[in-house]
Amino acid sequence: MGIVVQKFGGTSVGDTDRMKRVADRVARTHRDGNQTVVVVSAMGKTTDDLVTMAARISDRPPERELDILLTSGERISMALLAMALHERGVPAKSFTGSQAGIITDAVHGKARIVDITPGRVRGALEEGNVVIVAGFQGVSQDTKDITTLGRGGSDTTAVALAAALGADVCEIYTDVDGVFTADPRIVPAATKLTRISYEEMLELAAQGAGVLQVRSVEFGRNHGVRIHVRSSFSYSAGTWVGPQEDMVEDAIISGVAHDTSEAKLTVQQVPDRPGVASRLFSALAEANINIDMIVQNVSEDGRTDISFTLPRGDTHKARAVLEPLADEVGAAGVKQDDDIAKVSLVGAGMKTHPGVAARMFGALSAAGVNIEMISTSTIRVSVVISRDQVETAVQAVHAAFGLGDDLIVAEEGA
Amino acid sequence: MGIVVQKFGGTSVGDTDRMKRVADRVARTHRDGNQTVVVVSAMGKTTDDLVTMAARISDRPPERELDILLTSGERISMALLAMALHERGVPAKSFTGSQAGIITDAVHGKARIVDITPGRVRGALEEGNVVIVAGFQGVSQDTKDITTLGRGGSDTTAVALAAALGADVCEIYTDVDGVFTADPRIVPAATKLTRISYEEMLELAAQGAGVLQVRSVEFGRNHGVRIHVRSSFSYSAGTWVGPQEDMVEDAIISGVAHDTSEAKLTVQQVPDRPGVASRLFSALAEANINIDMIVQNVSEDGRTDISFTLPRGDTHKARAVLEPLADEVGAAGVKQDDDIAKVSLVGAGMKTHPGVAARMFGALSAAGVNIEMISTSTIRVSVVISRDQVETAVQAVHAAFGLGDDLIVAEEGA
Repeated sequence: MGIVVQKFGGTSVGDTDRMKRVADRVARTHRDGNQTVVVVSAMGKTTDDLVTMAARISDRPPERELDILLTSGERISMALLAMALHERGVPAKSFTGSQAGIITDAVHGKARIVDITPGRVRGALEEGNVVIVAGFQGVSQDTKDITTLGRGGSDTTAVALAAALGADVCEIYTDVDGVFTADPRIVPAATKLTRISYEEMLELAAQGAGVLQVRSVEFGRNHGVRIHVRSSFSYSAGTWVGPQEDMVEDAIISGVAHDTSEAKLTVQQVPDRPGVASRLFSALAEANINIDMIVQNVSEDGRTDISFTLPRGDTHKARAVLEPLADEVGAAGVKQDDDIAKVSLVGAGMKTHPGVAARMFGALSAAGVNIEMISTSTIRVSVVISRDQVETAVQAVHAAFGLGDDLIVAEEGA
Repeated sequence: MGIVVQKFGGTSVGDTDRMKRVADRVARTHRDGNQTVVVVSAMGKTTDDLVTMAARISDRPPERELDILLTSGERISMALLAMALHERGVPAKSFTGSQAGIITDAVHGKARIVDITPGRVRGALEEGNVVIVAGFQGVSQDTKDITTLGRGGSDTTAVALAAALGADVCEIYTDVDGVFTADPRIVPAATKLTRISYEEMLELAAQGAGVLQVRSVEFGRNHGVRIHVRSSFSYSAGTWVGPQEDMVEDAIISGVAHDTSEAKLTVQQVPDRPGVASRLFSALAEANINIDMIVQNVSEDGRTDISFTLPRGDTHKARAVLEPLADEVGAAGVKQDDDIAKVSLVGAGMKTHPGVAARMFGALSAAGVNIEMISTSTIRVSVVISRDQVETAVQAVHAAFGLGDDLIVAEEGA
């Protein structure tokens, strides 16, 4: 007998029929003798519909109220799932994020979990209930206001609860079979990974693989929660996310991720003086704008271009901050490019296998893809390219590392 | 500067456009210098839609989970109204029943308010906010579970908050202009009452006038809250509900109410022994069935018929309790009549004006309406008649007391 946390996303509970199928699966886990905690998202497009309603009322709704509005969707699904379980003879109790003890900071819309006090969850489990918890939401420590954890936040609710309860596994149910070597819609030959390390999963998630919220992987890594990403439409095994030492296969490369949601801003001909870049990026940070990649080329004639990528939705805000500053420091102006994509190659084996980047660049070049920016970590190489070439690039990189053929890439010369 | 509590029902906030009109009205109250608390119901048919979803999942959903489900509707409207107020430059904060300190017992589906601890409401008012509170819901004192107050429960939320805050007035906004001498859909000549006492309003509400939840009127009476029932579609005055001593006009009759939601059960030929009726009604009470009128005729040959009315939805449960008991005590059986209606005449002046009942019965007789059961209180006469005669009966009684002509009925001989 163990503790199992299961998370079902919006597609898995998209209508009452799917809700019943989820209940069948949860009932089975319960009957197998597990203490079962289920984290649910809002049904299907509920959250989008609520956002639309808010937009009809206000262009800039107060974030506290938007959070209250958006959390009503999970309340509906958790109650319906509890009913479906009762209908199957399984005792179940549902709890809001606040009732389940999901304590957050007060940053509405993207709150961070600061503590979990799962007393009521434990109590209800001890009584023999399946416990259902509303995903995506918590209550702020100081103001006691309802908060939301941002897009994909239910993943984090699940992993954080699994950590707090000492669960044996946190199962993330989704509409795909697991984590793939690339997006199967772009690369039909992409294969499902059996295992992946936290670090690699973090890089893949951060670089656009939508299957897990980045923060949930961080939480899993920091608390050693074994995460099993699997399909809610089948009973076959998915992908296990765990510590590096669990990885039985020593894959050099785990997969290719891509992201088409960013834009590139370039501050042109910035005078090459100490402190200028710092002023630009401090101003952006103060405006709460998340910057992704930054590239500064070598200086020519005492002037340089500074380029960076950021979520496309933030460019308006960023330009409002940058343009007066560019004037002030004597730069030539700010240029925007929306037609970019980022392609990333991720693999823990990169650390010890030189030549991975060179081989990736070679594959892109052979496919006629021009590289605009490059950024690397110890286990990742990312490039920014033109958006219309993203499919070509992902396919070329995926093929160059033989990811479709076999998960273990033979050691290569540089 | 005073404290005003305003309650808006589901029709008043039926869509985002109506929500904006409500926001205009609330903004005006706020700008007039009042500390304003707004209680909202779920939008339009939201609650009915949620009930339908639950029915698709389960025939007998657990009440705790049903309450969680149903309370999500108010959460949506309260957040949207807060946004609409912000949009109008009025600071506003919304609170769930639990956050607003609406403490109830644990009877899911029809919980009673046992305490109000409005600390957060007061705090937000002091900061200059309009405070919006979700109607119809609270949190149970012992289990900390979410509860609902039953149909019309938002009225009670509003009046109870008004009492706890010492509000100057509790305004109940609805889709009619106030409390009428009869249902205007049946009696076109029905007139709006300017004032009515708590006691009369209680009787009218209990006898089928849907404009206020009975419990809200009790709360108002017990705590001396002045209630103003008025239309959300106009700015004209509605009906004031207050203590008897406030009533400037000494109306004998306030109005005629009718109720077509009940059925009649008759336990036939009950042996006329002490304790038999007590056994029958104790068993019904234990099964949590609310009985309305009870009539026992004089005994013939040591046997008597006992008839009573009850909500039509409860007849199945009641018969399951009664039929074995009827056998046991030697009664002939249980007969059911669904085609009944109750018509009630309410007026504080009845106490001191004999002959009101006789005049009512005379009017019904002249209209060809047969009376099946009679029950009276000091300020009410109710009769049970055939359902197909309800309109005729209401019109005849309304006309006989001149309610359409003038609110003050001249004193009559018996």
